[in-house]
Amino acid sequence: MNKLDKVNTIVIEKTLKLDCGKSISNFPIAYETYGKLNENKDNGILVFHALTGDQFASGINPVTKKEGWWSYAVGPGKAIDTNKYFVICANVLGGCMGSYGPSDINPENKKIFGTDFPVITINDMVNAQYELLDHLNIEKLFSVIGGSMGGMQVLQFISNFPDKSHTAIPIACTASHSAQNIALNELGRQSIMADSDWQNGFYEEKNKSPAKGLSVARMAAHITYLSKKGLQEKFGRKLQERDDLKFSFDADFQIESYLRYQGSVFVDRFDANSYLYITRAMDYFDLTKQFGGNLSKAFQKSNTKFFIISFTSDWLYPTAENREIVIALNSLGKDVGFVEIKSDKGHDSFLLDVPDFLSAVKNFLNTSYGKINEKRI
Amino acid sequence: MNKLDKVNTIVIEKTLKLDCGKSISNFPIAYETYGKLNENKDNGILVFHALTGDQFASGINPVTKKEGWWSYAVGPGKAIDTNKYFVICANVLGGCMGSYGPSDINPENKKIFGTDFPVITINDMVNAQYELLDHLNIEKLFSVIGGSMGGMQVLQFISNFPDKSHTAIPIACTASHSAQNIALNELGRQSIMADSDWQNGFYEEKNKSPAKGLSVARMAAHITYLSKKGLQEKFGRKLQERDDLKFSFDADFQIESYLRYQGSVFVDRFDANSYLYITRAMDYFDLTKQFGGNLSKAFQKSNTKFFIISFTSDWLYPTAENREIVIALNSLGKDVGFVEIKSDKGHDSFLLDVPDFLSAVKNFLNTSYGKINEKRI
Repeated sequence: MNKLDKVNTIVIEKTLKLDCGKSISNFPIAYETYGKLNENKDNGILVFHALTGDQFASGINPVTKKEGWWSYAVGPGKAIDTNKYFVICANVLGGCMGSYGPSDINPENKKIFGTDFPVITINDMVNAQYELLDHLNIEKLFSVIGGSMGGMQVLQFISNFPDKSHTAIPIACTASHSAQNIALNELGRQSIMADSDWQNGFYEEKNKSPAKGLSVARMAAHITYLSKKGLQEKFGRKLQERDDLKFSFDADFQIESYLRYQGSVFVDRFDANSYLYITRAMDYFDLTKQFGGNLSKAFQKSNTKFFIISFTSDWLYPTAENREIVIALNSLGKDVGFVEIKSDKGHDSFLLDVPDFLSAVKNFLNTSYGKINEKRI
Repeated sequence: MNKLDKVNTIVIEKTLKLDCGKSISNFPIAYETYGKLNENKDNGILVFHALTGDQFASGINPVTKKEGWWSYAVGPGKAIDTNKYFVICANVLGGCMGSYGPSDINPENKKIFGTDFPVITINDMVNAQYELLDHLNIEKLFSVIGGSMGGMQVLQFISNFPDKSHTAIPIACTASHSAQNIALNELGRQSIMADSDWQNGFYEEKNKSPAKGLSVARMAAHITYLSKKGLQEKFGRKLQERDDLKFSFDADFQIESYLRYQGSVFVDRFDANSYLYITRAMDYFDLTKQFGGNLSKAFQKSNTKFFIISFTSDWLYPTAENREIVIALNSLGKDVGFVEIKSDKGHDSFLLDVPDFLSAVKNFLNTSYGKINEKRI
């Protein structure tokens, strides 16, 4: 992958005890901010990214030179309006865009960690990002928001720090990673590990890269982000720059070229070991189990106002799994809104231009922000 | 893969013109029969296998030493009752269990074909198997039946030979391979091709085998054969022989070990190039396009009685796609029955012990066979 020489980074000068039992100290967290923190310091929104995201939520991503992963949602005048809110987005622990991860140097042997990096969890990710708030002088956030693995971080954040955010918007996520989703992540990991250039995770010190395996993992994941109907409407059986079948194993169909392209560009911006670590964190995520099988207990101490969003054609994190979070909050009489957005764009809907989704986020944020300020007056 | 020294084979002493434009001559088709052809020679049922099937539909498969792939359905007293019917099942063209395929010797250069084997289609497969009927002295079959790719062969067979079977049972299939299914097959192919031991398809002459790539392809496919609900009920988040997470990349969850096992046993019985060729044939299948966009025309000349079966939790070949075949037949006023079987077992339902499915097949066959004989009397 292409690496950046410099990203905005804070070194967390603390020791963080990880779920695996190991500890990390003085580790970097890379982050970006958008907009300005106001005088009351009450307009902060922490955005959590998904599996292959990074801190570049908006504007031009300096690695890909393309729009940030959430440019539809985050920016001046957009759903998460950076003229109004101060948006913070950090690269997760285990990531490959500047935060502490498997490409970093292991202080014990001065070699690149590779798979000697400790296995991390969503809980570890959230605890690391929490340290940013002190650094930014934010006592209490206005909101925490994220889709997919970002949504899992939202849930874990509120559970860990019940009084740290006025509102929370978990999108297209789950409180407990399903068997099918574990299976799909395992498929991605096995694809990477099957690449002989993976070298048991120590490819960097050998100047190798399991690009083919990572590319196949991305192709697999990409199929799951789209709906069957969406794929059929966008690609169907359209041929790629030809009038008839070629009777070969080249990319005859547009969907084949599309997937090959998605795989090939991904390896330029993402690290294979990070893919292993982050998918593992998702698979380990089971907030319900953390509270002895009773998800409600995760939110018992919090008065955060929730807004939960799912999409009709999302088969990775279907509405039923999102609704379980709503039910857990309802059973406590907590303040929770819920909407299932109609979209054929599958799980990817939260990243795309889905107007009903974007306006739902915008309205919830702006209405909630108004109410918080009313109370203060 | 493990190869058999000897299988029942007929050499087709003809030249078959393939869809790709090339021709093959004097090629082997491996097949098995179950039960006996009666005096009237009217009890023949041709069973078509799916992507990774073979001619060993019932009894013990001599390669895997396990029950044949359709042992729930085919056998004495079973849905396809071999006490009553004469069942024929042939390995498809391009396969790896004795029929002409990429592991055979190329007559032009006396080397193993590898990816020099011509790209074949469902139409080619069906035309090759048709030649078996003469050899077995069967003028007209009682039925043609198959699930998944086997169902596609049923549709193509009736289209090509409208008067060759009294009845037809396409199960869990489609008349036109969808974008999502092309994508999933392409994922499998890319996984094989990403394995450096694939050697551009010429691995056999180099004594190599892309076992890791093929194993990942199988894992990917296996996930798609099961439903989200079925996976959740069978595996959920159960751990594999341990009480707690291991914080490593070993198989912590049962679903992970299960998939790894499925991948590893598959490579012992299946050839990677055959996987490429057969998935390609599926992707190329578009019976609707063969008839200028009007699927009805495929069945216009036939008076075959159809019975179409789909499964509620099959997301690969969902009911909607099976229903399109029913609609095409209905529009011609043809004799067609249709049932959607309730099952949580996903696409795999047709291979498993799903009593409603098995009894539907049994009843349709026995009732239809009775009527044919009534007419004769």
